[in-house]
Amino acid sequence: MKKRKNYSLHDLAARFGGHVLGNGDTLINQIATLGNAQSGHLTFLASSKYRTQLASTQASAIIISSADAELTSLPRLVCDHPYLYFAKVSAFLNPSLSLSPGIHASAVIGKGAHIDETAHIGPHVVIGAGARIGKGSTLMAGCSIGEGTVIGDNALLYPHVVVYHNCIIGQRLIAHSGAVIGADGFGLAMDGDHWLKIPQIGRVRIGDDVEIGANTTIDRGALDDTVIEEGVKLDNQIQVAHNVHIGAHTAIAGCVGIAGSTTIGRCCKIGGSAGILGHLNIADHVEISSFTLIAKSISQPGSYTGTFPSSSHDEWRKNAVHLRHLDALAEKIKNLQQEHEIFKKEVLQGKK
Amino acid sequence: MKKRKNYSLHDLAARFGGHVLGNGDTLINQIATLGNAQSGHLTFLASSKYRTQLASTQASAIIISSADAELTSLPRLVCDHPYLYFAKVSAFLNPSLSLSPGIHASAVIGKGAHIDETAHIGPHVVIGAGARIGKGSTLMAGCSIGEGTVIGDNALLYPHVVVYHNCIIGQRLIAHSGAVIGADGFGLAMDGDHWLKIPQIGRVRIGDDVEIGANTTIDRGALDDTVIEEGVKLDNQIQVAHNVHIGAHTAIAGCVGIAGSTTIGRCCKIGGSAGILGHLNIADHVEISSFTLIAKSISQPGSYTGTFPSSSHDEWRKNAVHLRHLDALAEKIKNLQQEHEIFKKEVLQGKK
Amino acid sequence: MKKRKNYSLHDLAARFGGHVLGNGDTLINQIATLGNAQSGHLTFLASSKYRTQLASTQASAIIISSADAELTSLPRLVCDHPYLYFAKVSAFLNPSLSLSPGIHASAVIGKGAHIDETAHIGPHVVIGAGARIGKGSTLMAGCSIGEGTVIGDNALLYPHVVVYHNCIIGQRLIAHSGAVIGADGFGLAMDGDHWLKIPQIGRVRIGDDVEIGANTTIDRGALDDTVIEEGVKLDNQIQVAHNVHIGAHTAIAGCVGIAGSTTIGRCCKIGGSAGILGHLNIADHVEISSFTLIAKSISQPGSYTGTFPSSSHDEWRKNAVHLRHLDALAEKIKNLQQEHEIFKKEVLQGKK
Repeated sequence: MKKRKNYSLHDLAARFGGHVLGNGDTLINQIATLGNAQSGHLTFLASSKYRTQLASTQASAIIISSADAELTSLPRLVCDHPYLYFAKVSAFLNPSLSLSPGIHASAVIGKGAHIDETAHIGPHVVIGAGARIGKGSTLMAGCSIGEGTVIGDNALLYPHVVVYHNCIIGQRLIAHSGAVIGADGFGLAMDGDHWLKIPQIGRVRIGDDVEIGANTTIDRGALDDTVIEEGVKLDNQIQVAHNVHIGAHTAIAGCVGIAGSTTIGRCCKIGGSAGILGHLNIADHVEISSFTLIAKSISQPGSYTGTFPSSSHDEWRKNAVHLRHLDALAEKIKNLQQEHEIFKKEVLQGKK
Repeated sequence: MKKRKNYSLHDLAARFGGHVLGNGDTLINQIATLGNAQSGHLTFLASSKYRTQLASTQASAIIISSADAELTSLPRLVCDHPYLYFAKVSAFLNPSLSLSPGIHASAVIGKGAHIDETAHIGPHVVIGAGARIGKGSTLMAGCSIGEGTVIGDNALLYPHVVVYHNCIIGQRLIAHSGAVIGADGFGLAMDGDHWLKIPQIGRVRIGDDVEIGANTTIDRGALDDTVIEEGVKLDNQIQVAHNVHIGAHTAIAGCVGIAGSTTIGRCCKIGGSAGILGHLNIADHVEISSFTLIAKSISQPGSYTGTFPSSSHDEWRKNAVHLRHLDALAEKIKNLQQEHEIFKKEVLQGKK
Repeated sequence: MKKRKNYSLHDLAARFGGHVLGNGDTLINQIATLGNAQSGHLTFLASSKYRTQLASTQASAIIISSADAELTSLPRLVCDHPYLYFAKVSAFLNPSLSLSPGIHASAVIGKGAHIDETAHIGPHVVIGAGARIGKGSTLMAGCSIGEGTVIGDNALLYPHVVVYHNCIIGQRLIAHSGAVIGADGFGLAMDGDHWLKIPQIGRVRIGDDVEIGANTTIDRGALDDTVIEEGVKLDNQIQVAHNVHIGAHTAIAGCVGIAGSTTIGRCCKIGGSAGILGHLNIADHVEISSFTLIAKSISQPGSYTGTFPSSSHDEWRKNAVHLRHLDALAEKIKNLQQEHEIFKKEVLQGKK
């Protein structure tokens, strides 16, 4: 392992803002959590629930808010948003992987493919005819790029990413292993007693600064394209069906399934294992809770949830049985109310 | 890109039925949506909700039902089922990929494997000892076929499909990237304080005309086989556990999980992210809604649902809290009803 | 196929305990189910529901409990736990795959990587600089091991397993195709109008005797490590987010999603498609039902469930509509109760 470079707190404050309390010449070379930081590490306090760890941390310095600045005597970078500040410093100290330019001898490059001379093409990569790989892009071992696909500059594809033919991908894509971009959508028509496959002749178009998690799948469009706008962040094992359109800067957590032809707005946040049915429209700035099924379009920003609270199995069994009789229960209440009203009226009218 | 072949509407009507209104010599070479069609494209109207796009489409011709035939003056193919007709024409205009015969120099072929001379074996493919690959089959880059596995004719395996050893696959399989067929089922026995792995010695058997989506997994049987009958269509990221049996022509949408030893009938339709517990029997012609858990066998055809409707988070919170007290609520109603009855009786009997 | 070795029931009883009834010289060479067993096969009765198949089985011998021992006249191994006994015999008869030592010519081995001479490195495998592969380990076709990663002895990695850089894996790992270990966690900070990626500089640490299913993903830690303790068994398509900690001997079924920084105890059992939110603590010996969302920490062992029972779609529609009005329903009952009490009191006081 090569030696890490050191920066003083003064250096960091000059670069990222905030002000220094304590010894500004303190040198740091890496970020770490309060609990695991060692000498040479910069830690951070982003939530008051970690305050108890302040006293025992072995960090050399800390990023902290002005409100909390006096809780420690460590050398510190004081700023408005410690978590964001930490993120910036960490990105600076840990630049993303970029391998040396060149095409590995075992890679197979199709006719007419154009690979920028600054790109890194790893072992056993296969690039189809007419594909284009941009400047400074890194395709690690075993990636497979289909015919005619275009990948922009400074992409980072971890081992075994597959992009099918004719897809269009912007700048700075990060795609993790096992991601599959551009496979056929699930398009079928019933023809008598069997399914007829509908050719999927659309593409996948992906904007700049998109990240795609491990084993996530994004299907190509049936006729028109599937579109992922710039800045979208997709976690692992997400399924994006054909002709979905995801607006810029939307972030989607793991295991979400999005059915065909649904449009999701900009700056949405979708929790893990949520599902969104097909042909819906989800507005900008919508937050969907984990494990929630969205079955209707959403036209207003806000938070949406639909989850069944868990309980002990026995308690659940006692309660869940009534779900199949909710309508009868509601009816019972209505009847009881009416009966009570009638009886009351009769008594008041002295009939009884 | 090579030039696409043109067909007149008369050509298509002769091949696929229906009749022509307007200029039957109109030439078309591709299918497109109403919104994106250009000159040379054939579009279609399969749902009345797209009627508003009829006036502005740039398509050269349209597939339309007789009921809607007078809504446009475009040259048109009039038929009973425009969507199915579109599917047939599209399949005709966009035949599925088939690469030139031969084995890439980088492929590794095991002892005694038999690969038909008309098959295409792409770069970095690995084929185990004794495996068989049928006529006209295409295995794209990096596919891995286990020892003794048999793949029928005219299969199309996209890059990075893995089939484990001793599996038996019929004709015309389409498998998308990242699909894993024949991995071990999740078979464990508790042995004191730790799990003992149960060898999974069954196989996967797959019938003709099956399609398997990207990153879908189909586990081999524990002792007997896992079976996928002919014409089954599986979308992406589906998990099929060991010893599941899926009946012919059943279609399953993305992210569904099917637990071990469950039998699913013929011609079922299962919505995305649904789940089916193990050791169940699902009848033929059952439809299961997206996001629904099936926890009991289903003996009657029909539609089954079990989803929690989403709402605004605040509304959800207000309502969901009662789910843990449904039994108490039902009890309360019962008591109130009894009390009311007793009180009424007492009043009627003049006791009060 | 090579001829399988035969063992007598006496051999097996000597090795695995239990006692023999009937002809102890009966030879068997494989395990099979009651329904599919043939001559030379040993079958087992682990559940009374299979008793009806006893009469017709073609097996040469059977593993059976002493309680059931008289239900058949087959030669039999009588023991306390037939299922566990079967598991042990099957593991003995079907040892896990181990390929011959050596590095395939097409594999690409990084500088300073150390591969034990007894390991098998298959075609197109890529091993990063400084990685270590232990004794007797098997890496099948196309596996990719990142720089500095350590894999212990007797590992079995099926084709196309990806392990990123600097991960630490114990002895006897079994990992199935498409599993991705060590991809970046989903770490983002909002910086004005866009997401800033937080470098994921932690590792994945995996204990001994872990099995990881096909297409399962285990993300590396953001700063500290993601940890999977010894004996953990993960089925297919599970998503384990960054900094999750899974306790020893916990078994997790397919399609489960576990969000970041959650700690799961030892010896837990988690059903398929369940979900666990982030930053929770789940105690030891907790069982979570399939399809259940855990949204709060669990401090007590026991079974937990939260699923919506399915019903016919029409019945569901009738009942589900009330879920959005449960709070109003509860309020209605409360009001009715109060009204009834007031009215009763008034009548009793003779006001009416």
